[in-house]
Amino acid sequence: MNILITNDDGIHAPGIFAIKQALEMIADVLVVAPDTERSAVGHAITLSDPLRVSEIHKENSFFGYAVNGTPADCVKLGLRCLSEKSIDVVVSGINMGPNTATNIMYSGTVSAAAEAVIMGVPGLAVSLTSFDTPEFEYSCSLAQQLVKKIVENGLPEGTLLNVNVPPLKPDEIEGIVITRQGKGRYEEFFDKRIDPNNRIYYWMTGKRMNLDHEDDVDDVVIRQKKVSITPIRYDLTDTDMLQKLHLWNIEK
Amino acid sequence: MNILITNDDGIHAPGIFAIKQALEMIADVLVVAPDTERSAVGHAITLSDPLRVSEIHKENSFFGYAVNGTPADCVKLGLRCLSEKSIDVVVSGINMGPNTATNIMYSGTVSAAAEAVIMGVPGLAVSLTSFDTPEFEYSCSLAQQLVKKIVENGLPEGTLLNVNVPPLKPDEIEGIVITRQGKGRYEEFFDKRIDPNNRIYYWMTGKRMNLDHEDDVDDVVIRQKKVSITPIRYDLTDTDMLQKLHLWNIEK
Repeated sequence: MNILITNDDGIHAPGIFAIKQALEMIADVLVVAPDTERSAVGHAITLSDPLRVSEIHKENSFFGYAVNGTPADCVKLGLRCLSEKSIDVVVSGINMGPNTATNIMYSGTVSAAAEAVIMGVPGLAVSLTSFDTPEFEYSCSLAQQLVKKIVENGLPEGTLLNVNVPPLKPDEIEGIVITRQGKGRYEEFFDKRIDPNNRIYYWMTGKRMNLDHEDDVDDVVIRQKKVSITPIRYDLTDTDMLQKLHLWNIEK
Repeated sequence: MNILITNDDGIHAPGIFAIKQALEMIADVLVVAPDTERSAVGHAITLSDPLRVSEIHKENSFFGYAVNGTPADCVKLGLRCLSEKSIDVVVSGINMGPNTATNIMYSGTVSAAAEAVIMGVPGLAVSLTSFDTPEFEYSCSLAQQLVKKIVENGLPEGTLLNVNVPPLKPDEIEGIVITRQGKGRYEEFFDKRIDPNNRIYYWMTGKRMNLDHEDDVDDVVIRQKKVSITPIRYDLTDTDMLQKLHLWNIEK
């Protein structure tokens, strides 16, 4: 089994180190990841600049390739150029911070898995729902299980699995739920400041709004100390609205 | 009526100039757009850097605000900070180049309209399906019509309209079709080169694959010299797969 690993926290993040160690116990792995953090880059790709690739060594052995691009760039470059083998699954993570509800749209972690499925390779995105508690043990064993199941069962063309794990020890996890994407989002504010040269600048900040309450929604499940697994696909047509639009009588 | 206009080609692109002129004939408009081209940035947002805003003047009058951020940043900043009025519709464009099929995922133009609908404001993305023929006349009049219809009829929460217009004169356009998102995508290649300092670099390039043939698909309609209007929503759950995943017996 051959696995390509990437992330959006960058190749030096602890989450990608942890998942590489876990997955190389069950497969041949290749790491291709951004050289620095690329969070919230969504599905950005790099068309106007050349991409550079560096070999990264950790603990005296080859760890993987660092790319001066986005997570989606890493998947494209990994699958097309850097891997000498045919890849069975692309795993993105382990991200620090949740990738649930509306936030999936901004997520470099999920976009990397989406890029994989666009290219015809099954994708798995794994996020820990904490920004500061690197409790990777459960995520690692679950990723091992899911990768095996993905290879065994396959995934429909265009579909990836988006997994969010609470930052708890394995015996504190209360279960696993197959979920839907929630509607929760950030309410943004801009902090307007004046720099030392008297120029205005803005910091984007925000407060998470919990808009979901049903027991089968990603954000809700996480609050119940359970793992959320959401099958995601980027078939964006609003089929209901498609019918209604015919009634608008748009004129040429 | 109050309209916020943005794009991903940057505030100095001809397409945003054209659509501003058209829409200010029917509404009060505010332009908030990236200071430079931000194509293929997807739904990236800027969290780690401060945002700067500059006033841009064209032809001796205020044209709009330029932001050192992404199209999604511009919409957030425009709606939250820069507009003094309540915005009725966010219009993104006119983009040079198609935003159809799988490419929607990489599109800053469409992401700006998506950001609007996340924030509860109807969104309209307008693209001309040519990279070099700035034939904006038909796009401008259609945008006028669609903005009025959006305000009149409303759009479902979470839904935007993604419009692609062939680069033709109004009398050459063969019709308007309500479409589905296609499956067409780019087959990427990487051009590996050596720089003058003997370091390797890669250029991403690609060839468009036409994978769609049905008459109600965005890419197909464009090839028939017709306008494509696709209702898009970012409800990403794969509901079929959701049922099937229960059969995988994933163990805690």
